[in-house]
Amino acid sequence: MRTVAVVGTGLIGTSVALALTGRGITVHLEDADPDTARTAASLGAGTTEPADGPVDLAIIAVPPALVGKVLADCQRRDLARWYTDVASVKAGPRAEITALGCDAASYIGSHPMAGRERSGPLAAGADLFEGRPWVLTPTADTSTEALNAVLEVVALCGAMPIVMDAAAHDRAVALVSHAPQLLSSLVAARLEHADETAVRLSGQGVRDVTRIAASSPGMWVDILSANAAVVADVLEDLAADLGDTVTALRSLQAADEGERRAGAAGIEAVLRRGNHGQARIPGKHGAPPTRYETVAVVLGDQPGELGRLFGEVGAAGVNIEDVVIEHSTAQQVGFVQLAVAPAAVKPLTAALRGHGWSVRE
Amino acid sequence: MRTVAVVGTGLIGTSVALALTGRGITVHLEDADPDTARTAASLGAGTTEPADGPVDLAIIAVPPALVGKVLADCQRRDLARWYTDVASVKAGPRAEITALGCDAASYIGSHPMAGRERSGPLAAGADLFEGRPWVLTPTADTSTEALNAVLEVVALCGAMPIVMDAAAHDRAVALVSHAPQLLSSLVAARLEHADETAVRLSGQGVRDVTRIAASSPGMWVDILSANAAVVADVLEDLAADLGDTVTALRSLQAADEGERRAGAAGIEAVLRRGNHGQARIPGKHGAPPTRYETVAVVLGDQPGELGRLFGEVGAAGVNIEDVVIEHSTAQQVGFVQLAVAPAAVKPLTAALRGHGWSVRE
Repeated sequence: MRTVAVVGTGLIGTSVALALTGRGITVHLEDADPDTARTAASLGAGTTEPADGPVDLAIIAVPPALVGKVLADCQRRDLARWYTDVASVKAGPRAEITALGCDAASYIGSHPMAGRERSGPLAAGADLFEGRPWVLTPTADTSTEALNAVLEVVALCGAMPIVMDAAAHDRAVALVSHAPQLLSSLVAARLEHADETAVRLSGQGVRDVTRIAASSPGMWVDILSANAAVVADVLEDLAADLGDTVTALRSLQAADEGERRAGAAGIEAVLRRGNHGQARIPGKHGAPPTRYETVAVVLGDQPGELGRLFGEVGAAGVNIEDVVIEHSTAQQVGFVQLAVAPAAVKPLTAALRGHGWSVRE
Repeated sequence: MRTVAVVGTGLIGTSVALALTGRGITVHLEDADPDTARTAASLGAGTTEPADGPVDLAIIAVPPALVGKVLADCQRRDLARWYTDVASVKAGPRAEITALGCDAASYIGSHPMAGRERSGPLAAGADLFEGRPWVLTPTADTSTEALNAVLEVVALCGAMPIVMDAAAHDRAVALVSHAPQLLSSLVAARLEHADETAVRLSGQGVRDVTRIAASSPGMWVDILSANAAVVADVLEDLAADLGDTVTALRSLQAADEGERRAGAAGIEAVLRRGNHGQARIPGKHGAPPTRYETVAVVLGDQPGELGRLFGEVGAAGVNIEDVVIEHSTAQQVGFVQLAVAPAAVKPLTAALRGHGWSVRE
């Protein structure tokens, strides 16, 4: 691939353009607002000059509701050999593309799972997609060449390609992106008219829960409009759970002890389900959960023993991932189990023994 | 203050004990589970030996439902001259303390606004309260000496004292802590049985929204039980907004354009309210929102101009807080407005002029 057109130079379009320009590809920038395209160009994302003939790939980076019309227009202009879009919803645009009679062989839908609370070209960065999933939604009509062109872009952006059905994609993003966005906004909305002193008590928890509530309403209305029915279904399920949670909280106030116990069990069940769901979310770069091994150290019961142990583990350059302490009360002696990366077991054992600790095999 | 008893050596009790021990105070540790107290002692948080006579202050760090009983027991044992608790709910324990006929003059309720997803003494740290709000809930009965004893502890822990009425405190924490916790759990719970591919699409947004869903269910059942009615009220308000949001999403699918517009307006309103609520949350250490001043730079339209400008701003050691670009399309020249801290205006202006940029006064 040598030439690309980016149509729509917002956050995502400009970020792709920056990444591809950085890899030596000639990028032609277009936007309905010429100022926005010029801003992207002045950031080094490419040129606002049109290409001489068809480019290899046109990347359509416009709101979901416009993808069909813009693709039809680009194909009419013979802008590129292959086409993709990067909209965050896939089934609706696909239906519109079919309805408009676009060429389906040269097009493949895609969606890089990256974003920021800020929008527009000034928030863009060449590394926005580094290590992030980038969904591709080919159909039976998609040509292998179109698929390979987009796979090349995904690789050049440092992202991880994932092939999905368009409808499955839309259900997935409703769960992991669209519903969390609305719930974050709903939690933050409760603080709009709260007492100043109450807001001062905010800690890292509410700060994290509401971080994405700072997102651009206009952009989110576009996204949610394109996936409204699927998101509404997810929110209705959540609303049912929320209703059960309120009922459980009210039961905690009941005079009857059985009802209070049922209330506590209901609350605990919600929190446990939250634990399980949270634990399924992969780490920052989609890495599978690491497996750790355990080093068991015999611990006396002197003050500061654990502090001294942790200090010496730190001095050995080893990260402790988890700790379990088992006290053996009769003898005032216990064991500490340190979970560490497999490669750290041998050097840590040697270092601790060197400092006089008794390490169990 | 020279001697303190910490009753309950979980995350909060052990962290206070570590902070006070580090400031030279003798800390006596107690816990219903002697192993837990020994673990705290082995971390250097104090001694498990009982004090010879009454200590200056007893800090009761037990679940909210136990505060009354434990305070009554401590006063019966004449454990300390003054007493406080650090439970995360204040009105319920206060009512129980009165009902149990505890001495109200020597007691003041308090709540350090700090926590972690992990619980227990091993998660503790002397710096847990650094810069954090610590609420005090004195009544007309509270002696000035008790208030001053707790103010001294707050200062030694590096926290920020805030005096509040117990009921106002409970409403505030329902808004900024308890309701966000449950909503985080409810969002995470939706992922419990989601397809593996869907979960792989998780990004930083859902990761942040659900971070606290990893919290300990047992601890949260205790907290929520003690503030159930207030939290239920907050969640019912949120459920009403959630219902409106689902209705708005369904309207977006309507055949009638007026209904679709109303749906979009409804979604946008929720997102905007979220923007406003989120913007009220203070920065990491409770600092008031900073005011910025603007430096306006004349910008040519050459590729890379903005990149070069940002590079030189960075080289000048100035943080840009916000950027607004105004293009003047006729002449292909625009202005960039850089929002920076007031103290940075003069050095930044001088540095940019030194590099040949035209900066407007």
